[in-house]
Amino acid sequence: MNQRALDALRPLLDDPAGYGVELHKTESKATIIDAGVNTPGSLEAGRIMAEVCLAGLARVEFTDLEINGKSLLGVAVTVAHPKLACMAAQYAGWAFKARDPEGADSYFAMGSGPARAAYAGEEIYAKLNYREDAQVAVLVLETGALPPDWACVKAAEKCGVAPENLYLLTAPTASLAGSVQVAGRIVETGMHKMFELGFDLDKVIAGFGVCPVAPVAKNDLRAIGRTNDAVLYGGKAWYTVKAQDSELEELLPNLPSSSSADYGTSFYQLFKRYDGDFYKIDPMLFSPAQVMVNNLESGRSFEAGKVDMTPVMEEYLS
Amino acid sequence: MNQRALDALRPLLDDPAGYGVELHKTESKATIIDAGVNTPGSLEAGRIMAEVCLAGLARVEFTDLEINGKSLLGVAVTVAHPKLACMAAQYAGWAFKARDPEGADSYFAMGSGPARAAYAGEEIYAKLNYREDAQVAVLVLETGALPPDWACVKAAEKCGVAPENLYLLTAPTASLAGSVQVAGRIVETGMHKMFELGFDLDKVIAGFGVCPVAPVAKNDLRAIGRTNDAVLYGGKAWYTVKAQDSELEELLPNLPSSSSADYGTSFYQLFKRYDGDFYKIDPMLFSPAQVMVNNLESGRSFEAGKVDMTPVMEEYLS
Amino acid sequence: MNQRALDALRPLLDDPAGYGVELHKTESKATIIDAGVNTPGSLEAGRIMAEVCLAGLARVEFTDLEINGKSLLGVAVTVAHPKLACMAAQYAGWAFKARDPEGADSYFAMGSGPARAAYAGEEIYAKLNYREDAQVAVLVLETGALPPDWACVKAAEKCGVAPENLYLLTAPTASLAGSVQVAGRIVETGMHKMFELGFDLDKVIAGFGVCPVAPVAKNDLRAIGRTNDAVLYGGKAWYTVKAQDSELEELLPNLPSSSSADYGTSFYQLFKRYDGDFYKIDPMLFSPAQVMVNNLESGRSFEAGKVDMTPVMEEYLS
Repeated sequence: MNQRALDALRPLLDDPAGYGVELHKTESKATIIDAGVNTPGSLEAGRIMAEVCLAGLARVEFTDLEINGKSLLGVAVTVAHPKLACMAAQYAGWAFKARDPEGADSYFAMGSGPARAAYAGEEIYAKLNYREDAQVAVLVLETGALPPDWACVKAAEKCGVAPENLYLLTAPTASLAGSVQVAGRIVETGMHKMFELGFDLDKVIAGFGVCPVAPVAKNDLRAIGRTNDAVLYGGKAWYTVKAQDSELEELLPNLPSSSSADYGTSFYQLFKRYDGDFYKIDPMLFSPAQVMVNNLESGRSFEAGKVDMTPVMEEYLS
Repeated sequence: MNQRALDALRPLLDDPAGYGVELHKTESKATIIDAGVNTPGSLEAGRIMAEVCLAGLARVEFTDLEINGKSLLGVAVTVAHPKLACMAAQYAGWAFKARDPEGADSYFAMGSGPARAAYAGEEIYAKLNYREDAQVAVLVLETGALPPDWACVKAAEKCGVAPENLYLLTAPTASLAGSVQVAGRIVETGMHKMFELGFDLDKVIAGFGVCPVAPVAKNDLRAIGRTNDAVLYGGKAWYTVKAQDSELEELLPNLPSSSSADYGTSFYQLFKRYDGDFYKIDPMLFSPAQVMVNNLESGRSFEAGKVDMTPVMEEYLS
Repeated sequence: MNQRALDALRPLLDDPAGYGVELHKTESKATIIDAGVNTPGSLEAGRIMAEVCLAGLARVEFTDLEINGKSLLGVAVTVAHPKLACMAAQYAGWAFKARDPEGADSYFAMGSGPARAAYAGEEIYAKLNYREDAQVAVLVLETGALPPDWACVKAAEKCGVAPENLYLLTAPTASLAGSVQVAGRIVETGMHKMFELGFDLDKVIAGFGVCPVAPVAKNDLRAIGRTNDAVLYGGKAWYTVKAQDSELEELLPNLPSSSSADYGTSFYQLFKRYDGDFYKIDPMLFSPAQVMVNNLESGRSFEAGKVDMTPVMEEYLS
């Protein structure tokens, strides 16, 4: 997957100026691609970032969406190997921390992308039963600060690659590329919810989704709110599965975001309600607004939830 | 066209695992690409399959469609040289049969793709006035069984190529790739109807269409039903033509599926009504639900039919 | 930008027949790509033409649009570096004239594409503060007549390149490719209006737009009417900017086409009303029907105008 992600990343490496990004070689020769920290980035850079997160096993395109009478920019995402692409690569599950060798400084960012599978240190990998013996590693960092060289060295070490074979693609949530790459998680968000509900992800053959690209907010907290609201209230996902109908009849009512008690309040307001403690928000909230499932075993279709951004539109466009 | 189709096929040859397909070299060195017989395939494999059927003269993308209040996965198809791409390549007109040299076994599948033009043995080719002296041949087989080597040898011989230059891309109708590639026939279905109505296809300059990708059914018969229903009740096509307005005034009312007496009953129910005899179904039924035509000669636009899946939605999502 | 445009043009150079275009090498070895003058062209050729106009800094895709109950073919356009791509390349600002050395003949066409930046002789370049020292030049001519060799020599000279490094991509407005490439100007039209209103275009980070592709008309005048109507009544654009909210509060009400007194009458009728004098039409009319702006500084969203083709639909589909 890391090699495929590197192929997907190639346009940014070959023509950084065209995409509004900048390349940095660190002292240890790791490559940082800044797609929004100190650069404007671009919609295309975000599109590529989303495909890189999905390890090149996906196709992301821009589209326009009409939701609650508003014209919204959106993405359409087609995913092959959803378990691998979404869970072993795209899911932002690596709480990456590093410390300056002299102990004076530390670095933290949420990491996603196939480098996670090369590291394979997260608990989830035991359950996914997947790890990669990679020659190159591609790590996506959702952050407002470029990683210092010692953080790159640490990441390379964790992934088992030489620093010169490490690529770190970075953008804050509150950036163009950041907003696009979160919208690109529409299929993954539903996969993760299925995982939490105990559904066997090997049963999921393919995924497709559409999701609004949230207007960039003035700071990362507001941006995290809006980009989540886009998925939870404005996103739709389609899955092709091979399962028992009875499993799906049980799964579907619990799958969309509306199955959570926290549904109906914008993410930013929830965050304030819970005194800024992200982990108090009901984890069952994190799922697309609407989910369609086609079961290859029976040929039947299942559907739950619906797109309705009414509860969040004011915050979204404020 | 076969060379262009091979270029379009290239991603599957280069990265079969990424697309959920498998490659087989037969004893005679023909290449079989299994995109759904013994493999899961993927949406992307289906997308590429559709472009291959259209001899690489088309662009196929996924999109979401809202039809009768339902959110449906769909494709958008852009076609250049519609007569060649649709009729000389994509139309599934080759009833390909082969017999084991020892006479013990036989093989049958409906063939499409540009290999048909290398064979050029169907009656239609006399009317199309087209054939290809091909170095390579790309044949798409809608089938639940991979072709044995002796069938590949026979196909290569018919196409006038060495077996090692024959590529057979296969998937059953009841598969992900199968469902996508039928939806990819939206422009072709209207072209074929025009052909049946005696309209000169050289007058058609370009085509575009959108069509729902039918949920995969539990067996091929049901899948044939749904994928046809998707085109006949949910598909739209746009054509740019160079003709007399009077011809189009005559053509249009007869062009969409609704012009057939068999319109209004799901394909599967029709099939049962006619005691399983496919050929008793009114051939005039096979056309997009809605057709738009722009006449370059006069600048005028013509339109007929409309998308309405009410008569088939229950069968479609059951 | 010219090198990027040449990369975007490559598919037409490599496979002209596939795209319905023809290549001509002139005596001075300039390359003319005829995408609609004496050729049928294709939707894809128009799509590529639009990306070439935007100097390869954009992505153009076909999509279907539902407007006023009609199903219309459309394009979706994603633009990086909008100031450069739209104003320094795509804007049709070069009134290109040449005269036969023997004085017997003259040639005129509106030029667009990045060759304009190599020439940089238009007044606008002083304000854009941009020019390109190009090795190759790619010029797009909206014309019904292929340029004679002496016109190519003159264009090459103006751009400071050898004629063999000049590429002239040509199609009349009343052609498939012509219709698509004008629809591809949806983001540019709003950029140009902002420019006219004195908004600093360096503040615009990214653009996206959707616009109907007008049915090809029977002559260029009618085609100019329809393609403009598509943008002015059927087009939407999204911009990401970095500005003061107060600037945007002032800008937005004046941005969409509906802010003009000439709004509400089809372009062709306006042209007749003003006795065929294009320059009597209110320049403030030229803008997308609907505009959305996201301000990175404040995180706020702004919106003005709306898509409504009622005033022009009869002319559009007549």
